[in-house]
Amino acid sequence: MAFSEYCPLDEKLLIDYIKGTPSLSSRIGNNFDDLVVKEVGDGNLNFVYVIVNSIGSMVVKQALPYIRSIGESWPMSKDRAYFEALALEKHGRLSPEHVPEVYHFDRTLSLIGMRYLEPPHIILRKGLIAGIEYPLLAEHMANYMAKTLFFTSLLFRTTSEHKRDVDKFCGNVELCRHTALVVFSDPYRVSQYNHWTAPYLDHDAKAVREDNLLKLEVAGLKSKFCETAQALIHGDLHTGSVMVSQESTQIIDPEFAFYGPIGFDVGAFLGNLMLAYFSQDGHADQANDRKAFKAWILKTIEESWNLFHDRFIALWDEHRNGPGEAYLPSIYDNSEVLLLAQKRYMADLFHDTLGFGSAKMIRRIVGVAHVEDIESISNVSKRASCERRALDFAKMILKERRKYEGITEVVAAIQQF
Amino acid sequence: MAFSEYCPLDEKLLIDYIKGTPSLSSRIGNNFDDLVVKEVGDGNLNFVYVIVNSIGSMVVKQALPYIRSIGESWPMSKDRAYFEALALEKHGRLSPEHVPEVYHFDRTLSLIGMRYLEPPHIILRKGLIAGIEYPLLAEHMANYMAKTLFFTSLLFRTTSEHKRDVDKFCGNVELCRHTALVVFSDPYRVSQYNHWTAPYLDHDAKAVREDNLLKLEVAGLKSKFCETAQALIHGDLHTGSVMVSQESTQIIDPEFAFYGPIGFDVGAFLGNLMLAYFSQDGHADQANDRKAFKAWILKTIEESWNLFHDRFIALWDEHRNGPGEAYLPSIYDNSEVLLLAQKRYMADLFHDTLGFGSAKMIRRIVGVAHVEDIESISNVSKRASCERRALDFAKMILKERRKYEGITEVVAAIQQF
Repeated sequence: MAFSEYCPLDEKLLIDYIKGTPSLSSRIGNNFDDLVVKEVGDGNLNFVYVIVNSIGSMVVKQALPYIRSIGESWPMSKDRAYFEALALEKHGRLSPEHVPEVYHFDRTLSLIGMRYLEPPHIILRKGLIAGIEYPLLAEHMANYMAKTLFFTSLLFRTTSEHKRDVDKFCGNVELCRHTALVVFSDPYRVSQYNHWTAPYLDHDAKAVREDNLLKLEVAGLKSKFCETAQALIHGDLHTGSVMVSQESTQIIDPEFAFYGPIGFDVGAFLGNLMLAYFSQDGHADQANDRKAFKAWILKTIEESWNLFHDRFIALWDEHRNGPGEAYLPSIYDNSEVLLLAQKRYMADLFHDTLGFGSAKMIRRIVGVAHVEDIESISNVSKRASCERRALDFAKMILKERRKYEGITEVVAAIQQF
Repeated sequence: MAFSEYCPLDEKLLIDYIKGTPSLSSRIGNNFDDLVVKEVGDGNLNFVYVIVNSIGSMVVKQALPYIRSIGESWPMSKDRAYFEALALEKHGRLSPEHVPEVYHFDRTLSLIGMRYLEPPHIILRKGLIAGIEYPLLAEHMANYMAKTLFFTSLLFRTTSEHKRDVDKFCGNVELCRHTALVVFSDPYRVSQYNHWTAPYLDHDAKAVREDNLLKLEVAGLKSKFCETAQALIHGDLHTGSVMVSQESTQIIDPEFAFYGPIGFDVGAFLGNLMLAYFSQDGHADQANDRKAFKAWILKTIEESWNLFHDRFIALWDEHRNGPGEAYLPSIYDNSEVLLLAQKRYMADLFHDTLGFGSAKMIRRIVGVAHVEDIESISNVSKRASCERRALDFAKMILKERRKYEGITEVVAAIQQF
């Protein structure tokens, strides 16, 4: 079934579309009698339909040409669905255990048919708010990040393959532009889209806008984000882009994917775990003081980085004679130089991770889009106090990140903060 | 006149082609009676025809699909002519006084018709070998580099324009790959293409291949070259890509152009001036000890950087409220933060310049392609001695570059070396 131009599908059109698309209809055994269709998207960015019957299931996601949640109408290329499908396929081949399978993509309709992540999968952010521990989360995320990022970097690709792939994702320019704006720009200036817990954080928001050293560091990160094509990154790897159960971790929504700095992905994940940590005091009550859960979050931050680091290096060692052209084996031909190279690479990546992670924290407190971890704290004064601690910590890390040599020091700093 | 597929033009075909191409034939007043046609290319990379009559003149340059000078046949996409024409046009609009005008481009034939740089223009490298001073060289090069690099960077472009332009030049992948190989890889390993003044430099070449710290630094530069899209760079800005007279400085041959690190261009120019400096002792004779000329080269190195620095900053100041999105005026809204930002930007750029410049020096001594400044020293022992000094200096700078705060210190280090 082919549409000659874009139109948003309603439920009836959707079912007709599935009937006419074998790669989708086969998922439900071509059986439309006991079909249950449910729209589960928040309606702000995309339509997301869950389609289930007794035989099978799928999700159909269709991009809308705007972001309704921001301002009256913030247009946003619906072609992002193309880059999302491309990234799901590329990352899916590299880490199939953590990326949902794509069944079908229709560029005209900006429509992706993909695996339905059945219950008990929930959005990680919701689980963190509920205080649920996920014992395999760090390991799974470390695996996903190490594989998708290593295998799309020059550590595994030739310079020609790399440039051709960079080219493919240059078209995702609108979404990159959006990130550059909302993460690296708006929080540091007066913008109609910014908001914060007023009046509590009025002074704090102003202090961000007047912090020259902070703005200097943010400029460096913004340049790196806009100029550095290190690997195919997810581009929006916060805890809302991860679905989890006790056994499974699935990364969704890579519509912001492009060739960018690796630390932007790793930092997004760790920064959002830190936001979850700082929000816990707002969720503590007499039944649950959240102390154990806070300790688990810190452990997960530490393990996520350490396991990522170790997996990344293990992949590097394993493929040191592979196709990658950043460190040709004929040059980096002894263990001393290889160790030096790996140490420097990972130290730079660690500092990028801390920088991008803290920038992502700051923007969630004084920028346009906030996180439910914090927004769901109903006591406003308590919320503001959580936010201030998160903000102050993020500012400190952003400015001082090069002094930290390992994640253990950072976790210790969080605890002492 | 249109060819349906590529074919190398001989003189007869060329004249027919010009006859059928108004943008070219008009340059010589459509007069073919007193035409003088001369092939002046070295025949290794391109055909270059000079066409002159009593009315006007032009150069017609056609790319061949290989580099004959390297190995038996090193294929090299003739589509480089497309990127050369694109860069000539883009850079030409930004710095028309230093970039020859393009009259015509034919993608099928990989053919560019452009201004003939009439005598007394000669290749700068030849002038430096002859010991000729060019009093305006530093100022002209500083202007050219500041304008072409500033105006194609995020200091003047929006993030969207930038990404779209990066996209356009991603296709120049083969030439980028070539540079990555011959500049950052081959000199640091055994390669059939490497050569040096043997046996004098046998040990020195081996020492380069065994210097772990040097190889570590080179890896960082290679990554930056392959991953960082800072501005539209010329990509091969050595003294053989510059034509000069006492009054005029013209930059030619940007076939390696792509979005890369700014320091790669500035470093190429300064590094090649340093090679010229170190070669002078090999050209000294009783008639001319070259001392004054060496002093002039050092002064030119110093002025080139300092004037480039000042012009670049002046453009930044002038356009601080312009379209550039790296430092939005609403964020970088006070002179303190702007000054901090400029200082950091220029310090990073200076260290990149020294890094890339010294890598370019090293590859000209132990890599595949050498420079005539040094190759033309007929006394082999004298040549080896010049080369060793250049090589040792470049190695030192490459490893220690972050300790240098300004070009004056670097020039002092050259003198003391």
